[in-house]
Amino acid sequence: MTTTSSDLYPVTRLADVREATAAAGVGALLLTPGPDLRYVTGYDALALERLTCLVVPADGDPFMVVPRLELPAAEHSPAARLGVEFVPWDETADPYALVAGRVGPVATVGLADRMWAMQSLRFRAAMPGAGQVLAGSVLRGLRMRKSAGEIAALREAGAAIDAVHAQVPDLLKAGRTEREVGRDIAEAILAAGHATVDFVIVGSGPNGASPHHELSDRVIQAGDPVVVDIGGQMPSGYCSDSTRVYSVGEPPAGFAEYYEVLRRAQDAACAAVRPGVSCEAVDAAARDVIAEAGHGDHFIHRTGHGIGLETHEEPYIVSGNTEPLAPGFAFSVEPGIYLPGRHGARIEDIVVCTDTGHERLNNRPRDLVVA
Amino acid sequence: MTTTSSDLYPVTRLADVREATAAAGVGALLLTPGPDLRYVTGYDALALERLTCLVVPADGDPFMVVPRLELPAAEHSPAARLGVEFVPWDETADPYALVAGRVGPVATVGLADRMWAMQSLRFRAAMPGAGQVLAGSVLRGLRMRKSAGEIAALREAGAAIDAVHAQVPDLLKAGRTEREVGRDIAEAILAAGHATVDFVIVGSGPNGASPHHELSDRVIQAGDPVVVDIGGQMPSGYCSDSTRVYSVGEPPAGFAEYYEVLRRAQDAACAAVRPGVSCEAVDAAARDVIAEAGHGDHFIHRTGHGIGLETHEEPYIVSGNTEPLAPGFAFSVEPGIYLPGRHGARIEDIVVCTDTGHERLNNRPRDLVVA
Repeated sequence: MTTTSSDLYPVTRLADVREATAAAGVGALLLTPGPDLRYVTGYDALALERLTCLVVPADGDPFMVVPRLELPAAEHSPAARLGVEFVPWDETADPYALVAGRVGPVATVGLADRMWAMQSLRFRAAMPGAGQVLAGSVLRGLRMRKSAGEIAALREAGAAIDAVHAQVPDLLKAGRTEREVGRDIAEAILAAGHATVDFVIVGSGPNGASPHHELSDRVIQAGDPVVVDIGGQMPSGYCSDSTRVYSVGEPPAGFAEYYEVLRRAQDAACAAVRPGVSCEAVDAAARDVIAEAGHGDHFIHRTGHGIGLETHEEPYIVSGNTEPLAPGFAFSVEPGIYLPGRHGARIEDIVVCTDTGHERLNNRPRDLVVA
Repeated sequence: MTTTSSDLYPVTRLADVREATAAAGVGALLLTPGPDLRYVTGYDALALERLTCLVVPADGDPFMVVPRLELPAAEHSPAARLGVEFVPWDETADPYALVAGRVGPVATVGLADRMWAMQSLRFRAAMPGAGQVLAGSVLRGLRMRKSAGEIAALREAGAAIDAVHAQVPDLLKAGRTEREVGRDIAEAILAAGHATVDFVIVGSGPNGASPHHELSDRVIQAGDPVVVDIGGQMPSGYCSDSTRVYSVGEPPAGFAEYYEVLRRAQDAACAAVRPGVSCEAVDAAARDVIAEAGHGDHFIHRTGHGIGLETHEEPYIVSGNTEPLAPGFAFSVEPGIYLPGRHGARIEDIVVCTDTGHERLNNRPRDLVVA
């Protein structure tokens, strides 16, 4: 079942965003192309030096400033459903002054989290009286709590990346390089229905001990554990991200023992997920299992990150984050154990907080797969 | 011939950048992942929420703050050649405070032009005494004046996209949709050696009258003029961008006449390119020919944009830009004539300003190609 644009990007969302903007005491949101704009409108606008910006005043009607050249694209985009006025600007006009003039004096504006400095500094100059905060401070509460449509889109993304993982054992052979395997995986990510490949990590042998290793020309050896962490963005805009560990032939001595610790840690963190539990408690649930087994120093990153229109977004599952989980929160649970110079392992599923517990959106076996 | 990393990203560049930073009266550049960082270091770092930032103080030694997870990637990147200290930060540390502490009090910092607001606002809070300007104000003079190595990389990109245009007549057939043709062109862009496809515009018939139209499900008809504007980024980081117009069978009445005007306009703008001529004079050279033929209102965009590590960068070839051209400036010359609801045309070459005139980096025939 494919989710439709109106499930994912309901026209009622704009009213929710206006309300949140007013409630946050922000005078207007300024949303340039990127995930914040797409979340509010469904419009996957190109990020360009020419300003496209949805303006959502706390009081007053939203409008979208668009370069005249982009007007046809905007008019054919999902943003056109919202009944928002498009305000085109001509090639030699100043769109920042245009926004400032229409918004009028406000104490604070909320900038799209990924707005480029070349734009935020122009807005600062054009609206010198307006303090700048992140639009994320307004939108995070909405964006973290995924709707049923968004969860369906993430489920679809999860199934797509699971289908890729199902093919990995056939691609991983001693004698092939990580890069060769990675190229095949990238093709499989697209063939499985993703619109883009966001990352392909194939960490074989010692490279598995570097969590953000990507691809190298290292030749995979018999006996290598291999960490495969892959993801992409679906045409819906929603992202996938899942990690499994494969062993090319029998793994080296000692590997199976800590892999089993990792499995228990990942299960414990998933089992901890329910409304009201803090993000840092989920992190601790994984970390405690690993520390008790004597591998605390080998788990060198946070347990996870939120996911949705961005691969990494709030909430972060990290020590110090006391944010309580709520139904609809979607994030990765991906503890790892890394033995520098030797090998490493990480198991990652996307998990959604439900009314009573959790649902995993990745469902490939979590046993060590001997390829 | 393939350009090498040291031609493109010489280790001496960092010293030039420090000098330019001091000369501009900027206390330090703060370069997050993106084209500014790549220009200075050759490091094509992933843009992530975790802060990676090259700091170039006007006085004092440059250093690069990297998430500990990214340290192996940074150490294997071209940035490692520069002898810059890597300062890793741990998962729960505050890297903004770290930068502020090491830089000390400065009056002004220069932010990478594409730095995300989630980072620029954190820097503002961590360095409240420092005014923020764009790093581009420091780097533009260097980045606009391409080195011999950069021009070689742009020439290579130009040849690659020319090789794609050479295949277009075989792909454009009446009865196919723009999207089908676009998919084939995207594959050809990668097969020609690009690392990524940046955009594929196939504007058939009336869609050709919308300059930033991309792809639609419109079925191409016999007699359609088709505007094909395509580009990608090479593994070197340098970009291609070229437009040609094709006619599927004989073009409609009147089309050949204004296409010939456009050819003359594009030639006139290229011929105007030499050191000391202003950007707006190049724009006017094209615009005057089109206006004299009575089509002034049908040329609705600037004549061109700079190109290098970004498809669109300075200098912009637009009315009001009095910047004088200098040897090494590289930019598109792409006038267009658009008849709304009917059809349109655009011819685009990348052009480099030489010591005495210009060199075109795209060399496919500029006649109307009847496919």
